[in-house]
Amino acid sequence: MKKIKTAVLGCSGLVGRQFVRLLAGHPFFTLSCLTASARSAGKETIAGLPVRETTVAGVVQSGARVVFSALPAGIAAGLEAELRGQGLFVFSNASSHRLDPRVPLLIPEVNPEHLALVQRQLREYPGFIVANPNCVVAGLAMALRPLMGFGPTAAIVTTYQAVSGGGRRGVASWDILGNVIPFIADEEEKIVLETVKILGAWTGAGIQAHGLELYPSCSRVPVREGHLQSVSVEFGQPPDSEALAHAFAAFSPEAQRLALPTAPLRPILLRGEDDRPQPLLDVMAGEPERARGMAVSVGRLRIRGRRCAFFLLVNNTVRGAAGGSVLNAELAFRKKLLPGGGR
Amino acid sequence: MKKIKTAVLGCSGLVGRQFVRLLAGHPFFTLSCLTASARSAGKETIAGLPVRETTVAGVVQSGARVVFSALPAGIAAGLEAELRGQGLFVFSNASSHRLDPRVPLLIPEVNPEHLALVQRQLREYPGFIVANPNCVVAGLAMALRPLMGFGPTAAIVTTYQAVSGGGRRGVASWDILGNVIPFIADEEEKIVLETVKILGAWTGAGIQAHGLELYPSCSRVPVREGHLQSVSVEFGQPPDSEALAHAFAAFSPEAQRLALPTAPLRPILLRGEDDRPQPLLDVMAGEPERARGMAVSVGRLRIRGRRCAFFLLVNNTVRGAAGGSVLNAELAFRKKLLPGGGR
Amino acid sequence: MKKIKTAVLGCSGLVGRQFVRLLAGHPFFTLSCLTASARSAGKETIAGLPVRETTVAGVVQSGARVVFSALPAGIAAGLEAELRGQGLFVFSNASSHRLDPRVPLLIPEVNPEHLALVQRQLREYPGFIVANPNCVVAGLAMALRPLMGFGPTAAIVTTYQAVSGGGRRGVASWDILGNVIPFIADEEEKIVLETVKILGAWTGAGIQAHGLELYPSCSRVPVREGHLQSVSVEFGQPPDSEALAHAFAAFSPEAQRLALPTAPLRPILLRGEDDRPQPLLDVMAGEPERARGMAVSVGRLRIRGRRCAFFLLVNNTVRGAAGGSVLNAELAFRKKLLPGGGR
Amino acid sequence: MKKIKTAVLGCSGLVGRQFVRLLAGHPFFTLSCLTASARSAGKETIAGLPVRETTVAGVVQSGARVVFSALPAGIAAGLEAELRGQGLFVFSNASSHRLDPRVPLLIPEVNPEHLALVQRQLREYPGFIVANPNCVVAGLAMALRPLMGFGPTAAIVTTYQAVSGGGRRGVASWDILGNVIPFIADEEEKIVLETVKILGAWTGAGIQAHGLELYPSCSRVPVREGHLQSVSVEFGQPPDSEALAHAFAAFSPEAQRLALPTAPLRPILLRGEDDRPQPLLDVMAGEPERARGMAVSVGRLRIRGRRCAFFLLVNNTVRGAAGGSVLNAELAFRKKLLPGGGR
Repeated sequence: MKKIKTAVLGCSGLVGRQFVRLLAGHPFFTLSCLTASARSAGKETIAGLPVRETTVAGVVQSGARVVFSALPAGIAAGLEAELRGQGLFVFSNASSHRLDPRVPLLIPEVNPEHLALVQRQLREYPGFIVANPNCVVAGLAMALRPLMGFGPTAAIVTTYQAVSGGGRRGVASWDILGNVIPFIADEEEKIVLETVKILGAWTGAGIQAHGLELYPSCSRVPVREGHLQSVSVEFGQPPDSEALAHAFAAFSPEAQRLALPTAPLRPILLRGEDDRPQPLLDVMAGEPERARGMAVSVGRLRIRGRRCAFFLLVNNTVRGAAGGSVLNAELAFRKKLLPGGGR
Repeated sequence: MKKIKTAVLGCSGLVGRQFVRLLAGHPFFTLSCLTASARSAGKETIAGLPVRETTVAGVVQSGARVVFSALPAGIAAGLEAELRGQGLFVFSNASSHRLDPRVPLLIPEVNPEHLALVQRQLREYPGFIVANPNCVVAGLAMALRPLMGFGPTAAIVTTYQAVSGGGRRGVASWDILGNVIPFIADEEEKIVLETVKILGAWTGAGIQAHGLELYPSCSRVPVREGHLQSVSVEFGQPPDSEALAHAFAAFSPEAQRLALPTAPLRPILLRGEDDRPQPLLDVMAGEPERARGMAVSVGRLRIRGRRCAFFLLVNNTVRGAAGGSVLNAELAFRKKLLPGGGR
Repeated sequence: MKKIKTAVLGCSGLVGRQFVRLLAGHPFFTLSCLTASARSAGKETIAGLPVRETTVAGVVQSGARVVFSALPAGIAAGLEAELRGQGLFVFSNASSHRLDPRVPLLIPEVNPEHLALVQRQLREYPGFIVANPNCVVAGLAMALRPLMGFGPTAAIVTTYQAVSGGGRRGVASWDILGNVIPFIADEEEKIVLETVKILGAWTGAGIQAHGLELYPSCSRVPVREGHLQSVSVEFGQPPDSEALAHAFAAFSPEAQRLALPTAPLRPILLRGEDDRPQPLLDVMAGEPERARGMAVSVGRLRIRGRRCAFFLLVNNTVRGAAGGSVLNAELAFRKKLLPGGGR
Repeated sequence: MKKIKTAVLGCSGLVGRQFVRLLAGHPFFTLSCLTASARSAGKETIAGLPVRETTVAGVVQSGARVVFSALPAGIAAGLEAELRGQGLFVFSNASSHRLDPRVPLLIPEVNPEHLALVQRQLREYPGFIVANPNCVVAGLAMALRPLMGFGPTAAIVTTYQAVSGGGRRGVASWDILGNVIPFIADEEEKIVLETVKILGAWTGAGIQAHGLELYPSCSRVPVREGHLQSVSVEFGQPPDSEALAHAFAAFSPEAQRLALPTAPLRPILLRGEDDRPQPLLDVMAGEPERARGMAVSVGRLRIRGRRCAFFLLVNNTVRGAAGGSVLNAELAFRKKLLPGGGR
């Protein structure tokens, strides 16, 4: 089988480097183009490829058909749309198009049926854009998915977010060493809006946002990788404790049945220890090797009355960013929506 | 006025040293006896006093009438009771007696009327024990107090706790450097039980625990001092936003009217910035000088429907430990419950 | 006595804020002008003064006669020279003019006689520039000064530098959390050249650099404030151990005899403990209150053969930056080189 | 080939766990016995084996012939000697026997000929003890080895040591968070004595300590793994710069020629970047997979006159502890000093 040529935009940042790592030796995709900002371009080769300045023409000329975007939101908005206009298939980690009603905000384990939204784009353009969610949402929506059958009405979420979420130079050591900063710009708004879109119903014509109420409170902690979250979920009725724990443990959705290469064998690891998950110990959870950092760890599950509480840990640069996008592209490939995938 | 002689038990730990610092130059109390475990005793002088091994006889012989206890719970249980039996007035940071129905679990700004419980002890013993709560509860109960008029039904609390909460050698650097540990032994149980006792009603004969439901989730973070908490409070009815914010800002209870020396002028500092409170910046909040570390900082107040959310920061070794006990003793002094206080 | 009006250039950075703090209530100087970059100007008032964009005209119009500069080197070079041309007396923390043979690189405790160099500037200009050294050198030269009588030939210096040395946003948390970075751009070159200038002899016409060989190796560590240094000094002859220790302890130079307000009573604190100095415990060393952070702590003094080794700690933003400049201005004032100082 | 049965003593600590990891799937050795202190024993199985209390009888009965010891020095002294008396071959990370003139203090890349010392033990006992050095020395002696031909006379070494060097609970987070502690008990003495023994000459009857003077200054930094060292070496004559750099790069000693399984292909990695080695990036240096953490990284090589300076990084729990002992046992195996090795 011939692999599909891909480009990674914004390859020199923390997420860009994860894209490059995940695409090395990938069974469906091959790297053919790396881009970065004018400031970073031309300075190095990564994985044997030169790093060019990010331009639409450059990407098109490289022959890439699939594009992974780790661009900043400001640049991504227009550039990703232009690439779609050129017939490319863009899997983006940028926030620019996440709330666009024609763009799937996709997590293969959670809402694979939303991928059908790309048909709405394909009526207008020769390509499409698929977005993956914010790094907190990537973990939160995964953990909420097995609970949806129990009728959750609200989720209160407090985060402990790693500095890598702010990019390589985003959080100054002067501010965070020995400290916690209880604010991350725009993060709580994203969590509210993205989560209800992901959990929303595909009506055949679009996505009907879920009615779940979300109350996020976000903080930065002096941790390098891995967003820990303390989640409290309210249900209309007291859930059955055993059934609820079982729902986590048994969670094995389509992405796993399709054996997508970057999908972890068990997308949620329910831990029974007193003191897990911990960023330092669990951030790379996930099997097989290619899926390291793709499993979401859930622990300290406590159910009392109409509420259940737990901690979850998501790898913010893998599951919450580059790995999420690669998994989305794998789903699109299997669903024959990509050129080399038989479309 | 003659100052009352006091002893500090367990003076060589983090809390013990705060007791010594707070009692230096105190207008009501003077230090006359310092004790530590057999291992630490005899090795140093602190504030010009020798450090003796902790024994009932030693404390009694020192002439101290008021005792501040920073003992570990296991030792405190029996020893504090013996000192009470010897006619001493014990203000304890240990957890041993906090839930005893005859022992006030006291925060002068929150439940000064509970101090009346000591009369139940004085019927049986020549002395009494007054406890201050767990370090998380010390901040949480303060922040909940002004909200009680709005009819809260539940509080979901997620903590970011400093390593000093575990004592000087309690948290190993190998475990916590660059990490978060989502578990602190017995902490969540204490938060539930102590908070409803403190917020409970004094019936004239005892304390009727408050019906507020508490859902705590506790974590240790790589911060040295200051417990940050993300709190979400549910009310029976949507509270009036303006009135609720005003309740925080205007909170000025009896401890402040009594001008207790260690009471901060404003016990709750409501901050309007985007990103406060932060442990590094706000842990020593409180005026005047003697009350540094005694004010609780509240920030990021958000009210939506029947819920309000905020972050709070409490200095765990000052307001949450030694300072809390000293303030309790000051209230007892002003209420003429201590020998030199005119009892 | 009328206080001299002063300006602080670059007041919004870490060093700028220390200048503002140190000048509050200063007996010789009063703040009349605060400037910052165009990006920061106009956004806030500090100490009751508006923050204006840094321009020569603005500073001159403010009536300031003494200028404290926390500007970046690139901007400082020209701007400080212009201010000197306008008759202002500039005390600069920037590196731009440190190696200019007409500019004193001054530490009052080490080389007060170098202040005479300003006369060479005053022949050409109506004002002058006085520089303080790099933050590592500020501590190193202080600790070497009492050893000069023993004939040192070389000093091998390895540093543990705090992130504040790189400015508020200079060191990214992603790079330094749980890490050490064994490189700081241009730092080792500065240490070599500045130290031999400071220790050099005033010939009546200029400074003759000292022949001491310096071998610095610089690293950044995850510490917020305080540069620790491991120093090994070689002498031509084995020094007398007792005399050498005494030289540290007895070090009490002119700055102390002149009772400069920001001079610590004891500029070097020789510590006898096993494990001091430590950044966290000793960074604010110095008495009286106004001189906190101005004392250099020396510990673990070991003398073997022709070598002596010790650790030293210098507060990099106080003694190594703003405090150093303020102390220099105080010396100039006492030496009647400033307008209100009787010149 | 039948693998030799081995025991790991003190298997539950940081070093013990590295032993277990390194012996998993080892081509020469198989794990047959794990021991820990009475407090830890019986609580868990590691790698499928029960953890028993450490006793001589227990180890002997397990059938193990080779013993890897991660015991604390106090216990190791007697217990390792008893095991030797029982005919076992002990490879110890404890400091107890390192300076015993009959015990090789061995680094296969540095002084493989010292292994001959075991013959002196075998004259008296049916077994022997081989020690590996202190974790700092493990890296330092490796880096000094290629320089020995240039005639070094002194080495001044300043360390930045990770908290894992003090064991899992050895360094309290309260002490080290955001701090540097310039003292590690007994460490500097060990560095002096162990380094000159390792670099010493095998006379046929014993080891003649090398005359190199060592001046170590040791500090603990808030890093989890990897000891960084700043080294300044003095030579009798100015060394040739090119030859010296070449000596590092070309260093490829017997351990590599013998293809010992845990020996890294290149024992010293000479890095040309400005800012390497760094603990976070380089602590696991070493190829192939089995030798990860066994290579010593050297960088920032600077040669001036009679001195050369560099930084080095050694993985303190692998190369500096468990990996060093395993490599020693592999050398003994190849040299046919172990039962299954053909002795």
